[in-house]
Amino acid sequence: MIDGEGVFDVIVIGAGPVGETAAKRAVRGGLTAAVVEERLAGGECAYYACIPSKALLRPMELAHEVERLPGLELRGPIDTAAVLARRDQAVSGLDDAGQVSWIENLPATFVRGRGRLAGPLSVEVTTPDGGTRTLRARHAVVLATGSDPLIPAVPGLREAEPWTNREATAVQQVPKRLVVIGGGAVACEMSQALHSLGAQETTMLVRDRRLLSRMEPFAGDLLAESLRRSGIDVRFGASPARVERPLPDGPVTVHLEDGSRVEADEILVATGRRVGVGDIGLDTIGLEGEGPIDVDASMRATAVPEGWLYAVGDVNGLDLLTHMGKYQARICGDVIAARAQGLPDDLPALRDVADHLGAPQVIFTDPQVCAVGRTESQARAEGFPVRVVEVDLAGVPGAYLQADDYTGRVKMIVDEDRRVLLGVTLAGPAVLDHLHAATIAVTSQIPLDRLWHAVPVFPSVSEFWLHLLEEYGL
Amino acid sequence: MIDGEGVFDVIVIGAGPVGETAAKRAVRGGLTAAVVEERLAGGECAYYACIPSKALLRPMELAHEVERLPGLELRGPIDTAAVLARRDQAVSGLDDAGQVSWIENLPATFVRGRGRLAGPLSVEVTTPDGGTRTLRARHAVVLATGSDPLIPAVPGLREAEPWTNREATAVQQVPKRLVVIGGGAVACEMSQALHSLGAQETTMLVRDRRLLSRMEPFAGDLLAESLRRSGIDVRFGASPARVERPLPDGPVTVHLEDGSRVEADEILVATGRRVGVGDIGLDTIGLEGEGPIDVDASMRATAVPEGWLYAVGDVNGLDLLTHMGKYQARICGDVIAARAQGLPDDLPALRDVADHLGAPQVIFTDPQVCAVGRTESQARAEGFPVRVVEVDLAGVPGAYLQADDYTGRVKMIVDEDRRVLLGVTLAGPAVLDHLHAATIAVTSQIPLDRLWHAVPVFPSVSEFWLHLLEEYGL
Repeated sequence: MIDGEGVFDVIVIGAGPVGETAAKRAVRGGLTAAVVEERLAGGECAYYACIPSKALLRPMELAHEVERLPGLELRGPIDTAAVLARRDQAVSGLDDAGQVSWIENLPATFVRGRGRLAGPLSVEVTTPDGGTRTLRARHAVVLATGSDPLIPAVPGLREAEPWTNREATAVQQVPKRLVVIGGGAVACEMSQALHSLGAQETTMLVRDRRLLSRMEPFAGDLLAESLRRSGIDVRFGASPARVERPLPDGPVTVHLEDGSRVEADEILVATGRRVGVGDIGLDTIGLEGEGPIDVDASMRATAVPEGWLYAVGDVNGLDLLTHMGKYQARICGDVIAARAQGLPDDLPALRDVADHLGAPQVIFTDPQVCAVGRTESQARAEGFPVRVVEVDLAGVPGAYLQADDYTGRVKMIVDEDRRVLLGVTLAGPAVLDHLHAATIAVTSQIPLDRLWHAVPVFPSVSEFWLHLLEEYGL
Repeated sequence: MIDGEGVFDVIVIGAGPVGETAAKRAVRGGLTAAVVEERLAGGECAYYACIPSKALLRPMELAHEVERLPGLELRGPIDTAAVLARRDQAVSGLDDAGQVSWIENLPATFVRGRGRLAGPLSVEVTTPDGGTRTLRARHAVVLATGSDPLIPAVPGLREAEPWTNREATAVQQVPKRLVVIGGGAVACEMSQALHSLGAQETTMLVRDRRLLSRMEPFAGDLLAESLRRSGIDVRFGASPARVERPLPDGPVTVHLEDGSRVEADEILVATGRRVGVGDIGLDTIGLEGEGPIDVDASMRATAVPEGWLYAVGDVNGLDLLTHMGKYQARICGDVIAARAQGLPDDLPALRDVADHLGAPQVIFTDPQVCAVGRTESQARAEGFPVRVVEVDLAGVPGAYLQADDYTGRVKMIVDEDRRVLLGVTLAGPAVLDHLHAATIAVTSQIPLDRLWHAVPVFPSVSEFWLHLLEEYGL
């Protein structure tokens, strides 16, 4: 499709779900687009993050549901080989042919290679054979280069060649002894998944005093209790001082600052992400730095006055979540098309609203943790007149019908001036599907007096809405 | 608590969830209340409907989820004895002591006996010992007498002493051969539950040409396909002409109008409900008829000009659903308290909005069927400018992660003038928890352009929202 040089209305660097979405929307808006990707089309998410991790977690979740319901019994432990095989299927055997076809059918041009900015509206691609081609954009370049795992500067850690989300989700041989550094989403999810699949001795080293430290405290507490009950050794306030791995495939030892140590067969680092701004040619347009690319509400990079550069997904640092990146990409693709054609570019659909209200997110553990909007402490810090209501999910008749010993909790944060929801956090078994109701309520700023008329069905766990509003005083 | 005669601010006839809720809200509003119940406090729902049916259905649903997920295997079929034991626990062994305490702790007075109106603001109670007492209400009497199963006038049917929802949910010995008359919620749920628990030959005789005939056609079609695949014999256009059961506990034969016949060990009739207006003393206040009691939006009976009679739940015929009855009861209890105290009685919370928008409801089968608002045909019949969008749930990445061969569908009905949702119907595995998001959207009349900013999390089935809105053109 390209021949030494190509000209497109839009060039997207990065073919993860976010870049793909930006291209899709721009093409739908009548533009031509090229998508440049060095690695697999489909992105980190499809092969090494969201998709395989959920494929590894779902059997654990379902096995727990069976254990909690009298009348059903599993024949034995989870069949790890079968789960890994299904994971392989979920990631298409790490073959991106299907994704490439999807892009080509938009239709858009897929360009395999490393894309770098090369001055305004210009992208240089280093192709797999080592050659280079230059692409030119008539209207816009979109950076959708994602992020990479961050390896903290602990002596010996990098040399120990630790697993990150990539190796953990691509696991072929589950280590018997696993040590995990981190206490956020990836650390919790992969610890529980690998433990359920055979990592008998799983140790989590968590620097903070609780898991999921950016979420409501009760969520991390419920999760820690569950992880510990299943046999995972969760250690708080644990800071690695140095790491030793004498043989590349041998055991690894983590020495902690308190003098203790943990030996394991594999080490997983899940301490955050670094946005993908390295080696993408920002210097060619006068930009510097290693931080995220600042964007306005239309996803346009604020530091490029000519307004041709956009950044969506992890690389803009707003919310490192696939669905938020895709949301930004819809806005971005649409707004580029509108501007290219001289159409109004300030319609409500062309501005990011959701990121600033607090993105919805889910930790796919058991219990699951779901949140949208602000936490209590965020809302208070921002000066909102806050009222907090919490209810025990086990108090809802629908919960008993789902499982014995149902344990869960929900908390809502209300802006007392406007009587609208600022945030909702849920933790409990398989609560994922309840989140979108909260997302709609938070995003649409529905007054509680109107939510009161949205009747949850009986008997369902969703009656927690009724309990929350009654507890509030409605 | 009563002594020959008692005087209360409010008297509620019927201690199902609806009557209990009316009393709770009236008491919360500062009134005294008595609740009269002849049968079990807690009502049909707690002992013979919603609660036990869901306890019987949940293992089937979960067993199907395990079958659809590689990596887990059940040891054997569902342990029927364990499921029945859990059902017994769910219905508190048909002992209502807990419910009576709950009412007394409101605090309200529980009066065991048959309650009948005896003129304005007066209720006569026939107590279990055969005596009578008269209670007087200062402000209001609330009818919450529910409904009873309807037995159609098929020759021999009543004499065959068929099961209704009561006997089916209270089952102790699952019949090997079961014939079910009906194609609505109860017929579908109990056929599937009992089939999963050992009713090897289950035959459904459905008068219409599809199941769930009041819902979107695709829902009944998907369900019929699933029931048939599991071995249930679903016969459409099947009208029973007569029923024979020579011996009370012997086999039963249903002769159909087309000349065929079905023999079974037990027969279940699930062809609708008759509202509970028989023998409740309506004649003493000049009312007649066997139909539902008409009410205004504050649940006040329109035929009683003095305004002291209210009717909530099945007996008013608005929506024969526990959660809608409880919703009406909240309005009713609150409005009675407001009127008794001379407070404003026309606040938004004191008017029924939800019933007229279309009540949310769930059929707890596999696939589950969830709906809220109007169906396409209802919306067209009411003259709305309708646009319909449907998407295949299997097209959402989150669906594959839940199960292999995920089969499901969602349909939304849009009012094109206002660009708001008139209705949503979902059918798929365990889609129950998705319903409340649709209920909020329909009830709050959120414009699609605002719903667009409510981002569903990735990877989850709730991304069907995104697919619907993209398909719509957003």
